[in-house]
Amino acid sequence: MFRNQMPRYEILSADAVAVLDKGWRRIVSEIGIQFAKPEAAELFRKAGQQVDGDVVKLDPEFVLEQVAKAPAEFDVQARNPANNVHIGGDQMVFGAVYGSPFVREGEVRRDATLEDFRKLSMLSQSFPELDSAGGVICKPNDAPLDSRHLDMIYALQTLTDKFYMGNVVSGPNAADTIKMTEILFGGRAAIEATPATISLINCNSPLRWDDRMLDAQFEYCAANQPVVLTPFLLMGAMSPVSIPAALTQQLAEALSGIALAQLIRPGCPVIFGSFLSNIDMQSGSPSFGTPESGIGLLCTGQLARHYGLPFRTGGGLNSSQTCDAQAAYESLMTLLPTFLAGTNWVMHSAGWLEGGLVSCYEKFIVDIELLRMLRVEFTPLEIDEESLAFGAHEYRPLLSSTANYERWLKLGGKDATARASDIVAKKLEEYEQPPLDDSIRAELEDFVTRRRAELGD
Amino acid sequence: MFRNQMPRYEILSADAVAVLDKGWRRIVSEIGIQFAKPEAAELFRKAGQQVDGDVVKLDPEFVLEQVAKAPAEFDVQARNPANNVHIGGDQMVFGAVYGSPFVREGEVRRDATLEDFRKLSMLSQSFPELDSAGGVICKPNDAPLDSRHLDMIYALQTLTDKFYMGNVVSGPNAADTIKMTEILFGGRAAIEATPATISLINCNSPLRWDDRMLDAQFEYCAANQPVVLTPFLLMGAMSPVSIPAALTQQLAEALSGIALAQLIRPGCPVIFGSFLSNIDMQSGSPSFGTPESGIGLLCTGQLARHYGLPFRTGGGLNSSQTCDAQAAYESLMTLLPTFLAGTNWVMHSAGWLEGGLVSCYEKFIVDIELLRMLRVEFTPLEIDEESLAFGAHEYRPLLSSTANYERWLKLGGKDATARASDIVAKKLEEYEQPPLDDSIRAELEDFVTRRRAELGD
Repeated sequence: MFRNQMPRYEILSADAVAVLDKGWRRIVSEIGIQFAKPEAAELFRKAGQQVDGDVVKLDPEFVLEQVAKAPAEFDVQARNPANNVHIGGDQMVFGAVYGSPFVREGEVRRDATLEDFRKLSMLSQSFPELDSAGGVICKPNDAPLDSRHLDMIYALQTLTDKFYMGNVVSGPNAADTIKMTEILFGGRAAIEATPATISLINCNSPLRWDDRMLDAQFEYCAANQPVVLTPFLLMGAMSPVSIPAALTQQLAEALSGIALAQLIRPGCPVIFGSFLSNIDMQSGSPSFGTPESGIGLLCTGQLARHYGLPFRTGGGLNSSQTCDAQAAYESLMTLLPTFLAGTNWVMHSAGWLEGGLVSCYEKFIVDIELLRMLRVEFTPLEIDEESLAFGAHEYRPLLSSTANYERWLKLGGKDATARASDIVAKKLEEYEQPPLDDSIRAELEDFVTRRRAELGD
Repeated sequence: MFRNQMPRYEILSADAVAVLDKGWRRIVSEIGIQFAKPEAAELFRKAGQQVDGDVVKLDPEFVLEQVAKAPAEFDVQARNPANNVHIGGDQMVFGAVYGSPFVREGEVRRDATLEDFRKLSMLSQSFPELDSAGGVICKPNDAPLDSRHLDMIYALQTLTDKFYMGNVVSGPNAADTIKMTEILFGGRAAIEATPATISLINCNSPLRWDDRMLDAQFEYCAANQPVVLTPFLLMGAMSPVSIPAALTQQLAEALSGIALAQLIRPGCPVIFGSFLSNIDMQSGSPSFGTPESGIGLLCTGQLARHYGLPFRTGGGLNSSQTCDAQAAYESLMTLLPTFLAGTNWVMHSAGWLEGGLVSCYEKFIVDIELLRMLRVEFTPLEIDEESLAFGAHEYRPLLSSTANYERWLKLGGKDATARASDIVAKKLEEYEQPPLDDSIRAELEDFVTRRRAELGD
């Protein structure tokens, strides 16, 4: 966890915020939002909103009343209390890449496996720059589809002692995640008192929350586990090719999802989510690390603060196929604005490649180095008379040159990717599994075995 | 030229600025600054300052009186008026890498030649992101030492129609640059009225302005040609390992050099220079793209504005040996703060590699792409009701995906460096030399031939 005490870089005028505010109000009240789960529509109907099938037209004031119930800041516990985090305020919390079906290891790009999932979890455990391995750090394609969520949660619980993200593929998967979290943390009451997971609920943009995600959201909100309500916007595909229009749509989607969360369980923790980039308007392919996404990111932070909500944006996003110059600069083109915006929960902080299709081992290391540098850069200078005295050499040592990983940047003779590959091997070799009580481990294993059998895998 | 209308990212409190202000006053008045040219010391002596040999102890108020004579903004003309620039205010002006003895072309690193100098000048002409090829875009090691400044200036004058930097190796070299500029622009009066060059005067830090640089400064200031008075600070070598102390030293050096300029010719244009990074404290080697240099850059901008001066910082600085991930992220770690600070004159904007030892063709292309992206990112959003209307797709097209060079980022199948190599070849093939009046060309050639003979080459 990093406390970002540097100034926020805000680029929206009060007038611009007012225009965007008017915009989402018009969308939710005139067009409405689709909630593809009858229980969701029913909650809105009971609360006096206008429901037509699964489309809900929302009174903006009602939405804001619900949003006001969400806590501005909250804690998430890890099984190692040293790794507990606080979401909101000037805190920044970082998780690794999420959702990639492929991995890249050096020159090889291939299907991700459970072994990759475990190795990437171990790497996430190894680096203090990450507060969480995240959730689906890659998709373990060699594990049976119906039960692989159990394998993933078990790996995150046992190979790391950091908090982890819950599975959101279905309601039952979410329930399994919660059950396993109860086992690890000593029961439902313990995790309802202080959440132990964060889960990603993506909007099926434009303007649609779909059934499987909503099923998962209902489980998590009911258990007081925070969800990140995230409009999934690639401008030119899921939203207009206009940053203001996309920001407006993002507000309509995120705030409506947050309102639902507060109907499920008033006061439950939520995070204003943003995943905002654009497609290439000539090929239609997704682009990351674009200037437009950087601008959107800065605006998103300002808007989330305007509505009093912790927020998620950013990460080491890029469209490159290899861990080359493009991968590096597109990633930093996203990560540096992430720090300028003071993002509270940063997914995809390490390992993202090829538009998120790939979890890359070498890129993971490069991203860790970027995070390390940015933490130094966003630590305020303390300047007083003493800092100018002779002998002030002890003052604020040059962190960038005394702590870099294995001094890999200075080794020369190989390019950065080859050196990163060496670091991966070394870190995996040095990895030590965090200790876990045997009875808890046994209970987790029993649960996984039983559920796997029930699921027929 | 780019007008940066986004907010400046300022991180120094008023108290911190006051501490730094007090610091440079103490250095110039108690320790003094060395000016290794008798005419310089004599100017200070005549102006009532305390001179002991070549060390001048300066009254800070006197320094600020001189600094106040420097224009806050000024124009620099190019032979193509479309390429004229304005230095100061919210304008950002960009030049290519400067001073590298080596070039890298793909896998080959070798001594730079005059042919490289010409090719890099042609590339600089080709890209609108650069306002100038700069000056010593590489060191043409195959041209005779005493007369190579003539070859370089001639190449810059004829292969580009943008403004160029003057040679600063000696007073006579500076005089030759001015003479050739007079020929190109129609006489001394024309370039005294509106300068046509910018020249880099580096401080031999700590606290020493050396004779050769001062000889050049005297020539340029007398001709009303702007000089960039630049403390050359690698923290841990030429300044303390402390950002506040380095900033203080930087102020003492830059302001004293600017005061001298105003004694040479009151009102002559100057630029507050900054070249501020750090050495690796374990190896002693220079490091670039470090967080400390990013912080220093942001502070430098704020301080230059405090003293009412246009300023130079930043560029695509990095320590990498190849155009790899490290080269890219270190460069952006410098270039993005360059835009946040609103730097007026940005040297080393394209092609810098290996701590400035190398001008790299492929890195040149990568940097151009970074500049293109950052220009988009630092263009303010205009948000009004209209921007949210249906059909607003025409609003602010996604520049990042419609204008990229040859769509090279999207070609795939090769890494970014290999693709950059293709762009270099294509751009050199497409290059068109800007037209120049035959009589002017003949006059320039006559001058070069005559001076070359005088110099015995």
